[in-house]
Amino acid sequence: MTPAAAPMIRRSSRRGSRRRQAGGPGPNAHLCVPYIARGIPTYDILSEESLDRIETTAERILAEIGVEFRDDPETVALFRAAGGTVTPLTEASWNIRFPAGMIREILRTAPERFTQLARNPANSVEIGGDSIVFAPSYGSPFVMDLDRGRRYGTLEDFENLVKLGQSSQWLHHSGGTICEPTDVPVNKRHLDMVYAHIRYSDRAFLGSITAPERAEDSIEMCRILFGADVVEQNCVVMGNFNSTSPLVWDGVSTRGIRAYAAAGQGSIHLPFLLGGAVSPLTPAGTVAQALAESAVGCALTQLVRPGAPAVLAGFIASMAMRSGSPTFGTPEPALASLALGQIARRWKLPLRCAGNFSTSKLPDAQAMQQSMMSMMSAVQCGANYVLHSAGFLDGLLSMSYEKFVLDTDLCGMLHGYLRGMDVSEDALGFDALAELGPGQHLFSTAHTMRHYKTAYYDSELDDNQPWETWSEQGAADSMTRANARWKDLLAAYEPPAIDPATDDALRAFIARKKASMADAWY
Amino acid sequence: MTPAAAPMIRRSSRRGSRRRQAGGPGPNAHLCVPYIARGIPTYDILSEESLDRIETTAERILAEIGVEFRDDPETVALFRAAGGTVTPLTEASWNIRFPAGMIREILRTAPERFTQLARNPANSVEIGGDSIVFAPSYGSPFVMDLDRGRRYGTLEDFENLVKLGQSSQWLHHSGGTICEPTDVPVNKRHLDMVYAHIRYSDRAFLGSITAPERAEDSIEMCRILFGADVVEQNCVVMGNFNSTSPLVWDGVSTRGIRAYAAAGQGSIHLPFLLGGAVSPLTPAGTVAQALAESAVGCALTQLVRPGAPAVLAGFIASMAMRSGSPTFGTPEPALASLALGQIARRWKLPLRCAGNFSTSKLPDAQAMQQSMMSMMSAVQCGANYVLHSAGFLDGLLSMSYEKFVLDTDLCGMLHGYLRGMDVSEDALGFDALAELGPGQHLFSTAHTMRHYKTAYYDSELDDNQPWETWSEQGAADSMTRANARWKDLLAAYEPPAIDPATDDALRAFIARKKASMADAWY
Repeated sequence: MTPAAAPMIRRSSRRGSRRRQAGGPGPNAHLCVPYIARGIPTYDILSEESLDRIETTAERILAEIGVEFRDDPETVALFRAAGGTVTPLTEASWNIRFPAGMIREILRTAPERFTQLARNPANSVEIGGDSIVFAPSYGSPFVMDLDRGRRYGTLEDFENLVKLGQSSQWLHHSGGTICEPTDVPVNKRHLDMVYAHIRYSDRAFLGSITAPERAEDSIEMCRILFGADVVEQNCVVMGNFNSTSPLVWDGVSTRGIRAYAAAGQGSIHLPFLLGGAVSPLTPAGTVAQALAESAVGCALTQLVRPGAPAVLAGFIASMAMRSGSPTFGTPEPALASLALGQIARRWKLPLRCAGNFSTSKLPDAQAMQQSMMSMMSAVQCGANYVLHSAGFLDGLLSMSYEKFVLDTDLCGMLHGYLRGMDVSEDALGFDALAELGPGQHLFSTAHTMRHYKTAYYDSELDDNQPWETWSEQGAADSMTRANARWKDLLAAYEPPAIDPATDDALRAFIARKKASMADAWY
Repeated sequence: MTPAAAPMIRRSSRRGSRRRQAGGPGPNAHLCVPYIARGIPTYDILSEESLDRIETTAERILAEIGVEFRDDPETVALFRAAGGTVTPLTEASWNIRFPAGMIREILRTAPERFTQLARNPANSVEIGGDSIVFAPSYGSPFVMDLDRGRRYGTLEDFENLVKLGQSSQWLHHSGGTICEPTDVPVNKRHLDMVYAHIRYSDRAFLGSITAPERAEDSIEMCRILFGADVVEQNCVVMGNFNSTSPLVWDGVSTRGIRAYAAAGQGSIHLPFLLGGAVSPLTPAGTVAQALAESAVGCALTQLVRPGAPAVLAGFIASMAMRSGSPTFGTPEPALASLALGQIARRWKLPLRCAGNFSTSKLPDAQAMQQSMMSMMSAVQCGANYVLHSAGFLDGLLSMSYEKFVLDTDLCGMLHGYLRGMDVSEDALGFDALAELGPGQHLFSTAHTMRHYKTAYYDSELDDNQPWETWSEQGAADSMTRANARWKDLLAAYEPPAIDPATDDALRAFIARKKASMADAWY
């Protein structure tokens, strides 16, 4: 924990052009950055001794219980060669036990931080260290808005949400499966999704992970976009891979991980841990398991290509024990995130953790209470990549258009929070008080004039007016304002420029790929 | 900062009786406490050097600018005798400059923590150290609910809100002016307010501060309730006093402070700092000013009666600079709270800071987003007494019945958060995973059976059901559920027992006092 004394958010002058496109620098221009560099320390809640106990438990899990691998003999061979003890379970599944220290040793070649290039170089992001990157939520089959309610997501929704993401100065990354475009065949939709990220955003994004050949397609599209040489030497795309908790890595994931790693691209290794269902109910046990499962995924990348970017991750959820329903944005997962953050720093790995979660079905008080608790833990735990930063409702099943803009505003608040506190002579403000003395308002002081544009984050959605004004203007609640807001943003959206030849080549690749496959809907 | 490894919430077996009265121990019984003992460290964002700079600025403010005192020559005489340099400004106002270190030296006699007795001894609270006490919000002229909208508060509202507070296991203190009962004359309403706290709650509470004689009445009613000997030797009531920022202490406040201190009772010393209006816009400057103003108030108590309980405090707000409207629950005040917490620990004084704040006019997404950010800072900064823990909307102008129950549920979440993380062998959960091994759900493990009742905080208001169930049951948003909830709580409310003779004596005192005064309405 390094206490910080002054604002440390990195500014990129190249950002200016995109901001001006969106209507000129707003009141929060001083906070706009391609990614955040934390200006406050992480929140460390556990002692080194407690962290030792969790790490030792993770090592015991790996050495004594082991991890099951399915449908990927190549991955099994890699771990066997590295020292794992393989026990066949069936023809296509194997248990591997890892001697204490083996996985951590393999991870010594993994980078502590890396850059993911965006097609607009001003939007390239750093992942690791003190950086924080916000990306939209990922993976919902449904979308919802106040006008049309809840429905299956379509490609149009997908594109709309990419555009909304691009429109927000508080996101840094375009994300991945921002919603499932269920009107496109399962075996082809990854092409449309990757294309939408490339075409409607100029930020970094995630590729497909649902099959190894779809991972390869994602990387190939990046070669068209960036050039093969650039892809060979840089991280330009990442895949987000889930383990099958408890303690299983399926071949679809491990073969995808190997595809990304072999190409030198990034991968995120995510146990989705619902306490009491697929991990111990107790948060310390869940953290130990998250470490064990995720570290094994990360280690696989290093066996394929030492130095490939790998992100430790943990999605930690709780349960309403009376009903068995999963719960999100609750206190125990927040604590678990803080602990996992401490461990990621000890292991010198970038971290993906927490996000804007809620079980609410509407963008209401419950939604933002839960979201705020979870997002505070994300930025306080030192998560470097916060995948689910905007849109989730309905226990991750739905992307809400209104919640999306409420969440990006919350991300804006966090930009203000994370710049920390300036304690320079000017910020200490003695002269401001001395100028007029006791009992005199400071509105007109030189200090106020100097700072009023940059002192505070100024919410784009919150209503701070007097009750009478708010009432006269229609007494809207915040979800109603959010409904108007996303429509305004979509109406004002303009796609970033793209080289027409590149665009043509991408479209030709997609057409060729689609023509080569019959539609598959499952 | 002391990292903690195990739950540290204090449990009182005596609490059981009250909980059972409210319908038996619920799913969160393991979290019920008379007050919280933080089981996680505070969140320290500034280095010692940065804190030195803020403290030095506060000392410079006191030594070079000074503080203005109005209408209380006795207080001026006390500070002059202690070493202050007094400069008369008018016949009834004086500037006092305090040599560097003088105020801090005076405060050496102030207790680092103290107990405030409740009439039910099981509900007495500790204020200071690692304790956290939640009390309802304070001071709104208006109340609102979804049925009747916004209106001036009445004594009936006041009593209802005291009852709602008493009904919640997540509040620890009954608060003070929970709303202004505007249907009772200004010079008499304090009697009804203090009586309502005594009669409808059995927790500790705040007395009146709007005039010295009302402070005396509050203390006198406590003598009737507790006995004069008990009051002489214990803190049984506190007053919450505001400075008149910037850098003014009015005689109504200082004479009230002297009344509480002379009786050995507690006092809270609160600068209400709206950056850019009555303090510097820059958070570091606001923290320095908060320290200067509040420390002077605290020091006054020690000049009156060394050892009297005094609470350092800061209410720190921001401003929407485009409109000049105050804003609450925003990131910069959250940072300022964290810094003020670090300073309070260096000064070894109990702290009141932050709370459930919002500018929203409805208990909506904005309301809980802002509230959560502010309340997270309250519990992370180490605030010991969180006065505004439940009810505020409308920029502090209104107490909302719905927000009250949403906020108490948030306070429940924070009980779960603050117990921290158990890293005992059992909590590390190795056996839970070893029992069935990879790929097997943990629902039926012995570990799950052992922990399912106590693993998680279980919200009383949140909806975690599947979308279909929620939809079939009426698709209510959380403010609608909150509306039903407060009505259920009021319907189920039963007043705690009180000795009839004591009750008679209190009523007789109030009747006598009221008869002695003509009604005053301003």
